[in-house]
Amino acid sequence: MMIIVMKVGASAKEISAVLSRVKKYGYEAHLSDGQERTIIGIVGDGNVRDYREQFELMEGVERTVPVSHPYKLASREFHATNTLVPLNGNRVGDTKVLVIAGPCSVESREQILETAHAVKEAGATALRGGAFKPRSSPYAFQGLGEEGLRYLAEAREQTGLPIVTEVMDTTMVPLVCDYADVLQIGARNMQNYALLHAVGKAQHTVLLKRGISSTMEELLMSAEYILSHGNTRVMLCERGIRTFERYTRNTFDINAIPVLKERTHLPIIADPSHATGHWQYVESMAKAAVAAGADGIIVEVHPRPEEAVSDGMQSLTLERFADMMKALRRVAEAVDRTV
Amino acid sequence: MMIIVMKVGASAKEISAVLSRVKKYGYEAHLSDGQERTIIGIVGDGNVRDYREQFELMEGVERTVPVSHPYKLASREFHATNTLVPLNGNRVGDTKVLVIAGPCSVESREQILETAHAVKEAGATALRGGAFKPRSSPYAFQGLGEEGLRYLAEAREQTGLPIVTEVMDTTMVPLVCDYADVLQIGARNMQNYALLHAVGKAQHTVLLKRGISSTMEELLMSAEYILSHGNTRVMLCERGIRTFERYTRNTFDINAIPVLKERTHLPIIADPSHATGHWQYVESMAKAAVAAGADGIIVEVHPRPEEAVSDGMQSLTLERFADMMKALRRVAEAVDRTV
Amino acid sequence: MMIIVMKVGASAKEISAVLSRVKKYGYEAHLSDGQERTIIGIVGDGNVRDYREQFELMEGVERTVPVSHPYKLASREFHATNTLVPLNGNRVGDTKVLVIAGPCSVESREQILETAHAVKEAGATALRGGAFKPRSSPYAFQGLGEEGLRYLAEAREQTGLPIVTEVMDTTMVPLVCDYADVLQIGARNMQNYALLHAVGKAQHTVLLKRGISSTMEELLMSAEYILSHGNTRVMLCERGIRTFERYTRNTFDINAIPVLKERTHLPIIADPSHATGHWQYVESMAKAAVAAGADGIIVEVHPRPEEAVSDGMQSLTLERFADMMKALRRVAEAVDRTV
Amino acid sequence: MMIIVMKVGASAKEISAVLSRVKKYGYEAHLSDGQERTIIGIVGDGNVRDYREQFELMEGVERTVPVSHPYKLASREFHATNTLVPLNGNRVGDTKVLVIAGPCSVESREQILETAHAVKEAGATALRGGAFKPRSSPYAFQGLGEEGLRYLAEAREQTGLPIVTEVMDTTMVPLVCDYADVLQIGARNMQNYALLHAVGKAQHTVLLKRGISSTMEELLMSAEYILSHGNTRVMLCERGIRTFERYTRNTFDINAIPVLKERTHLPIIADPSHATGHWQYVESMAKAAVAAGADGIIVEVHPRPEEAVSDGMQSLTLERFADMMKALRRVAEAVDRTV
Repeated sequence: MMIIVMKVGASAKEISAVLSRVKKYGYEAHLSDGQERTIIGIVGDGNVRDYREQFELMEGVERTVPVSHPYKLASREFHATNTLVPLNGNRVGDTKVLVIAGPCSVESREQILETAHAVKEAGATALRGGAFKPRSSPYAFQGLGEEGLRYLAEAREQTGLPIVTEVMDTTMVPLVCDYADVLQIGARNMQNYALLHAVGKAQHTVLLKRGISSTMEELLMSAEYILSHGNTRVMLCERGIRTFERYTRNTFDINAIPVLKERTHLPIIADPSHATGHWQYVESMAKAAVAAGADGIIVEVHPRPEEAVSDGMQSLTLERFADMMKALRRVAEAVDRTV
Repeated sequence: MMIIVMKVGASAKEISAVLSRVKKYGYEAHLSDGQERTIIGIVGDGNVRDYREQFELMEGVERTVPVSHPYKLASREFHATNTLVPLNGNRVGDTKVLVIAGPCSVESREQILETAHAVKEAGATALRGGAFKPRSSPYAFQGLGEEGLRYLAEAREQTGLPIVTEVMDTTMVPLVCDYADVLQIGARNMQNYALLHAVGKAQHTVLLKRGISSTMEELLMSAEYILSHGNTRVMLCERGIRTFERYTRNTFDINAIPVLKERTHLPIIADPSHATGHWQYVESMAKAAVAAGADGIIVEVHPRPEEAVSDGMQSLTLERFADMMKALRRVAEAVDRTV
Repeated sequence: MMIIVMKVGASAKEISAVLSRVKKYGYEAHLSDGQERTIIGIVGDGNVRDYREQFELMEGVERTVPVSHPYKLASREFHATNTLVPLNGNRVGDTKVLVIAGPCSVESREQILETAHAVKEAGATALRGGAFKPRSSPYAFQGLGEEGLRYLAEAREQTGLPIVTEVMDTTMVPLVCDYADVLQIGARNMQNYALLHAVGKAQHTVLLKRGISSTMEELLMSAEYILSHGNTRVMLCERGIRTFERYTRNTFDINAIPVLKERTHLPIIADPSHATGHWQYVESMAKAAVAAGADGIIVEVHPRPEEAVSDGMQSLTLERFADMMKALRRVAEAVDRTV
Repeated sequence: MMIIVMKVGASAKEISAVLSRVKKYGYEAHLSDGQERTIIGIVGDGNVRDYREQFELMEGVERTVPVSHPYKLASREFHATNTLVPLNGNRVGDTKVLVIAGPCSVESREQILETAHAVKEAGATALRGGAFKPRSSPYAFQGLGEEGLRYLAEAREQTGLPIVTEVMDTTMVPLVCDYADVLQIGARNMQNYALLHAVGKAQHTVLLKRGISSTMEELLMSAEYILSHGNTRVMLCERGIRTFERYTRNTFDINAIPVLKERTHLPIIADPSHATGHWQYVESMAKAAVAAGADGIIVEVHPRPEEAVSDGMQSLTLERFADMMKALRRVAEAVDRTV
């Protein structure tokens, strides 16, 4: 359904041209004649939105107003109840809050194993770690590659924690699927449509991060790409957006948690590490995310942040992570969840 | 303290001109000669920042880097412990979370009295209501003016709740002081310096709202204007910032809560109503704010939001406000606070 | 005129409640029944927009879509031809491009007189200079006040250039009117409604600067405040907006020039100095503004920028200003204007 | 080179730990002791920036300030004179302004041939047209694929115009190289590092569009990825950034033209079609871009915009394009360029 607002003083001929065009595209038109101007409602099957610009460019048309939102499979209207994404015996989107923890980059076998054991003990339910790293500089560390994936797999073997790791290019999807339980699509790739198609086809669980300046609607449209392949194991992740504020690395759009929960059935994960960029604020923001209704959090943890090759500033030490987990349990309980 | 970074290849003459200028302004210079370029540290009393642009425009200078932040009286370095703002027997900034509730606009005697009694009963600690309304349209309702102030005073008399109301112009400060316990400076006036001076001089308690696109640093600088008059009864308010996201009216910058708590001793209040613009998200965001460490919240409540002359969309009904208070108590307890 | 979009599955009772409400407010309703949902067009006299939120909060309503824009007197629909603002024998908005030049702050009698003579000779048509300065820090230079206004008046006497200077508070309007030909409303005060009313009533020529993060619609609404007093001598000024980009002080929204020219009859002035924050880019951006259709430019010029007490970084020297004027004349000619 | 700012009151032990770390990493330290605090300058070969976070996390360190920018090969310091990118006998970056014109999507053989002949005749120097289209909806037209590339090649054969077309995925690079003269990297892929590496290796000419919310620094860093493969045939493209303003699709950051020209030797192309989103503003913005110093423009042109499958709203008709070219020639001349 779409509305066409005619200009003040649009001629009868212009109005009738619009009506013919509506019929030509196979839709039905409803006319509202005001004193000031005419409004035409368009109804029918199919996606009338596709013709939006064509109508807007017709003589006498002021603008069009699409009535329905552009995403379908991702919407609550299509699927009213929460989608529960199975992960290692848990169901993300249910009462228990998922906690994904680990370093930004896998740096060595020792580093990832030490971290995995510690976060497991503190109560994490999944392990994160980057083997392929998107870096704004070509001169910065780009990750250990497959070697990193092997260390992650070993960490899973030892701890039982499922692995969340990023995939950056279509050609890498099969390799990363071999090792990872969850494929992470990073913020910079949220609109890399070839990659979205590839992970959709792979039928693997996906953690889709919101682009640094993507609207929630765009995030849902990107999820739609994956869902359109029949792959419903999709978790969305709010990780901070880019604004004018400079005291933090990004601005954590915590509004997105209840707004997305209202609009989509997919689980919402929050990333307080990237959202703030400074470890001092991570615990506060993790608690806020859980209080706001997040289905999970993903946090950066490193045994020695001051030696981390990337994102040390926003990484919790193992001790601080354990403390945060205790604080998180209390907040989760206060909103009838568990961690 | 400030650092001057010289250009690659700056000449000895250029460097020596900078050193002379430093001396002329009464500061001391420290030179670091790199292979690549020279850096000059400037130390001494007084605000060397004032000369920032003068140095940046000298030949051979690439840029300057101020080392200290520009606010003083507002900083934790100046005043390490929380400033506790007295309000009707409470101390804002202490363990108890302040809850300011009430309608956007005072619309009638009945409306404000009904609201005041209901929010009092549900546990609010202060009453809000606008008598002078900043409206983007000159054709919209501009508030009841002094009549509104009188109704607020009557509500205080009946319920004991202190009154928070906006003042928009220097000429109105004395009048609003006569009626209000807390003068609210709205987001649009955060950098109305004449008004900041006026409320500073008035020695009245102030709730200073962050501008829609003001940085936290600018908010602290505006607080500094008030503090510079020796008026330390200042509460800061995060109420959402303007971003590209369109599903919500503003983006609630919840990061600002821990960041401001770290940098300033002043209490931080959160406004989930303006931060979201939709009543459905207000409870979630109020819980998130308390979990994040806010010292108070300010929420819009109206007996019949669908009849409100302004901000009905973001107003809670009396029942929903009472429900929210129950939920808030649990979250507050989980972070060792009370409501 | 406004459209109400009902929810999918809204009941007959809900629809009829909306129709009754439309009638109650004195408007007429037009119904469009789609298979999927119902749309209601509202027509009639008066501002139905005022009831927007009331309708949005009714059961069964999904959202409302206002059809007309909220400003009237500022619109091209209200006044089709360019408003020509008289200024010292020129008519701003006509073929000749207005050039307002001068320092950020009036610092001394000598400084303003030297600048006035130089910019006059280079071809400027008005003199700018701040006597009351809005500064983010209470510790920074706040302007010479009335002394500065007197120096400006002397400069006008000597050069014949009309004076543009900022007014920051309602109480100062009469004083500044005594000295200035054009009252500047600064970006921070664009939504200081008390001040807008005051300059509207004063019937003085106004230069209204766009707020740092105000939409063009909000700028037009602020102009509407002034116009609603019958004062049509209003010039709008695009001076850069706040974005995430950090290489420039602000982002010059040059799109605003043709967009505003299309929507309003008021002249549009561009401020390349604040829009960039660096003198090196001012000439390029001044040429771009004229090429884009600006009716004038306002630039900061200082005899010795490296000694300026404010905005030295973005000030042109007298020589550079003269060079820019030559370049500007050529571009103006290429778009059938003169400077 | 980098500066480390120690906290007020940092201990001698903390300072000495930083100095040891500097030595350990192979750099030299210069100390500046102020009354208030200590500053440490770090000099030496290699990229000390890599250790930024490690230093920031040490006890007693307040923050670090990198002195040099992170890009090298893209900088004017590395290559002082304009890089001239050869294209079909022209040299982009020289006096003649490149004009790339054509439809958003290649829709049919007829459409692209008709457009190619018309824009050639009006004076365009290259033809654009998308065969692979990034669309926010999976349900929208995704381009004709290789068929579209074949039509583009035919258009080149008939008109002699070189072809600019987008490549969206690493696996498609060889195919697109076979047909296109210039590989376009779209805004959504500006930080798709796998793709940047692939087009760098391909040694093909690249048009790199700035991401919708990428800083200029990030754009230069993405160019650096391509340059690091020894591929210097890179043109940068400013195409509008995302801001809060809603009257235009994007905000054209025209400041970027002089700022980038100052910082990099690569040619800068401007895209007024995406920057505004509405054909009415395209001519004004094209003129502004040329006045500001752009080395080229890329505009969307369609024989029948009201029937375009994508971006019709921002497409010029063939006639309007021809008119724009005439206007552009005059502006180019006024800034000593040709079109």
